[in-house]
Amino acid sequence: ISVWVLQADIDVAVQLLLKLKVDYKQMTGQDYKAGCPPSENSVPPDNGPAVDGADDEDTVDPWNVSTTSAKGVDYDKLIVRFGSSKIDKELVDRIEKVSGQKPHRFLRRGIFFSHRDMHQVLDAYEKQKSFYLYTGRGPSSEAMHVGHLIPFIFTKWLQDVFDIPLVIQMTDDEKYLWKDLTLEECHRFAVENAKDIIACGFDINKTFIFSDLDYMGASPEFYRNVVKIQKHVTFNQVKGIFGFTDSDCIGKISFPAIQAAPSFSNSFPQIFGGRKDTQCLIPCAIDQDPYFRMTRDVAPRIGYPKPALLHSTFFPALQGAQTKMSASDANSSIFLTDTPKQIKNKINKHAFSGGKDTVEEHRKYGGNPDVDVSFMYLTFFLEDDEQLEKIRQDYTSGALLTGELKKILIETLQPMIAQHQERRKQVTDEIVKQFMTPRPLNFNI
Amino acid sequence: ISVWVLQADIDVAVQLLLKLKVDYKQMTGQDYKAGCPPSENSVPPDNGPAVDGADDEDTVDPWNVSTTSAKGVDYDKLIVRFGSSKIDKELVDRIEKVSGQKPHRFLRRGIFFSHRDMHQVLDAYEKQKSFYLYTGRGPSSEAMHVGHLIPFIFTKWLQDVFDIPLVIQMTDDEKYLWKDLTLEECHRFAVENAKDIIACGFDINKTFIFSDLDYMGASPEFYRNVVKIQKHVTFNQVKGIFGFTDSDCIGKISFPAIQAAPSFSNSFPQIFGGRKDTQCLIPCAIDQDPYFRMTRDVAPRIGYPKPALLHSTFFPALQGAQTKMSASDANSSIFLTDTPKQIKNKINKHAFSGGKDTVEEHRKYGGNPDVDVSFMYLTFFLEDDEQLEKIRQDYTSGALLTGELKKILIETLQPMIAQHQERRKQVTDEIVKQFMTPRPLNFNI
Repeated sequence: ISVWVLQADIDVAVQLLLKLKVDYKQMTGQDYKAGCPPSENSVPPDNGPAVDGADDEDTVDPWNVSTTSAKGVDYDKLIVRFGSSKIDKELVDRIEKVSGQKPHRFLRRGIFFSHRDMHQVLDAYEKQKSFYLYTGRGPSSEAMHVGHLIPFIFTKWLQDVFDIPLVIQMTDDEKYLWKDLTLEECHRFAVENAKDIIACGFDINKTFIFSDLDYMGASPEFYRNVVKIQKHVTFNQVKGIFGFTDSDCIGKISFPAIQAAPSFSNSFPQIFGGRKDTQCLIPCAIDQDPYFRMTRDVAPRIGYPKPALLHSTFFPALQGAQTKMSASDANSSIFLTDTPKQIKNKINKHAFSGGKDTVEEHRKYGGNPDVDVSFMYLTFFLEDDEQLEKIRQDYTSGALLTGELKKILIETLQPMIAQHQERRKQVTDEIVKQFMTPRPLNFNI
Repeated sequence: ISVWVLQADIDVAVQLLLKLKVDYKQMTGQDYKAGCPPSENSVPPDNGPAVDGADDEDTVDPWNVSTTSAKGVDYDKLIVRFGSSKIDKELVDRIEKVSGQKPHRFLRRGIFFSHRDMHQVLDAYEKQKSFYLYTGRGPSSEAMHVGHLIPFIFTKWLQDVFDIPLVIQMTDDEKYLWKDLTLEECHRFAVENAKDIIACGFDINKTFIFSDLDYMGASPEFYRNVVKIQKHVTFNQVKGIFGFTDSDCIGKISFPAIQAAPSFSNSFPQIFGGRKDTQCLIPCAIDQDPYFRMTRDVAPRIGYPKPALLHSTFFPALQGAQTKMSASDANSSIFLTDTPKQIKNKINKHAFSGGKDTVEEHRKYGGNPDVDVSFMYLTFFLEDDEQLEKIRQDYTSGALLTGELKKILIETLQPMIAQHQERRKQVTDEIVKQFMTPRPLNFNI
């Protein structure tokens, strides 16, 4: 036979096989795996969930968070899936005992709900062995919303009560790799966002904020740790953890090592003087956990302690808890630049309500705070536990109307945002420069 | 039908397809490409050749060079396969005319045999638009052999005749990623190897030597270019070019961007003051070409000029031209630390001879210089063209015996190596530090 006949035979066999596979998928709901492996086209789409992709589950990874429930993601299920531990009453009490401070409302209300190795951190702290904090932000635009502040508000509290150093990574390189932005734009967003972060009140003597684009080129020790991590993680592993595909650029594929490196204290010799055994505690939203699962897997293989973690829930969009907020949709959240009037209008117009359709029905049947975004926002920002509980009861009974609930939220957020804007104005270029200069910090470890 | 029947059908279809593909390969000598893409198992082994894997061809990539011919790799075929251009008499004459110097023996004898865009470089140079040189070394051990000097000897000549700046990359990060070595070992080898490179006579006012592990952490501009390149190359592309697999670590997968970055002048703001349009000329052995094919593909997409290239043949092992030399086999080459006695013994014992078995036969039939390693080495190191031609003729006729040929090589290499060792002794730590400090260079562009 000629090569052309053979080629035609192969084409027929391929078509047959493809049809059989479609049948298989229809029958089983799964891709056929053995024999001829999946073609590139059957690989999940860019940055889609890999391990976490089963249909009935919430999707939670660094690029996608989605759920079909109006109450938001099922966080108890997430703890089981991710293999982390619940922040239970015992741990909250212990943090209170060790720090000597009333636990932050984010702890009292389960907003930071999951952890890894927090007991170990406290054990060591009780024996005078200190630790440091690491958190970060991906600067994808100038605009930050209140949800972006959650990890920073909590990290500031941790810095205050434990009196420890903090490093904040601005992943401008990541945003360049993932978004249609120039390096210069990403770097500018990093500096602008740093101003909002500084306005949260961090101690300039204990806090180092860095842009990856700057610090990678300013610290051979940081790059050495990046290379060490990159040697100990395969493409198969990042494919499994992050859902990368063969069509992803090599920058994305190797980036997880750059988010991992600040978890090791010798990435900051100016702070820790070359010590590699100071433990790291990372407060972050749960969607960042995949990076640190990878980091914790690598750590012992390169001779470093595993970072501990505190995970927060997601801050819901005004439209409801089904999705994470989008910085690109101005109506999806309250931005840090919003005026009192904008805040009022957005909440009145867009905040998803758990109330009934008419005042009469609401008085009769009561509202549902579990799906009401205004109530959810109050759990994040209203400090007084008793007042919050009274609001919950009154809303549930119908005594409190949706308009009244929204008014409480508006009057909570307006002064909070105004004060933030006032503090941000005080943040001069000189102050940003100081925070972002590699330098020794002032602490006792 | 049940899922089990369907599964069996698929297995049969897969078997049929696999058989047809084997037939196709037997008939055409090539892998079948269209339709069902290659499975992971059919991807070539770690770092093996990808595009270049057909059985009857020489293997040439950054990690493997092999051929079945005693004459060595077929370089004319390689030019066709790589899509480069032959360095013909016209180009050699032109280099002589533009530089005003007699062409280096490596050019006269086809040791640098292939190029990309060298005419463009000369066109610009004639119009007073200068260029810079970039070459490098992977410091996998302290021991360097004479073969390692080939690109440096030639690059020094280019620097002298064109009076231009030069950057030399020591890829200590690459060696850490590929070999079972610590970061500290790789960095130490980089500094030790730099001494041998400096001993080739480079102008300290025009030469910057850098370790990746140091320079990445010392230059935000270098890292910015690395990230730019990493954004514009996919895993599919490096898989095709370098034969990487899913089991390779993410450090290997992203490394090609680090070898590419010095091809762009704004990676060295201390030298070029932020100019991004100074063209780069890269003299290197042909096995490094895959890195720069990738670089040239990316360059226009990120707004930079493509680097030009000059490719050298491989320096043969003492045992014959079938393989590239190994720094780990002390008897495979002449090392830069060898004593006159070691040089003599190695050549007499190990240098593969193209001579006949007995003196009588040799006198009668003559020797074969094309496979004789001693003669090959003389083409690299004996400056006098007429003397070399006479040796060739006398050896071919049988007038010159193998022992006599080896004696000429010994007497050529002994003083050359001794002089190198003398010059290396003069290279103090202070001088190495100067060469390796990012600083302005002294030149007119």
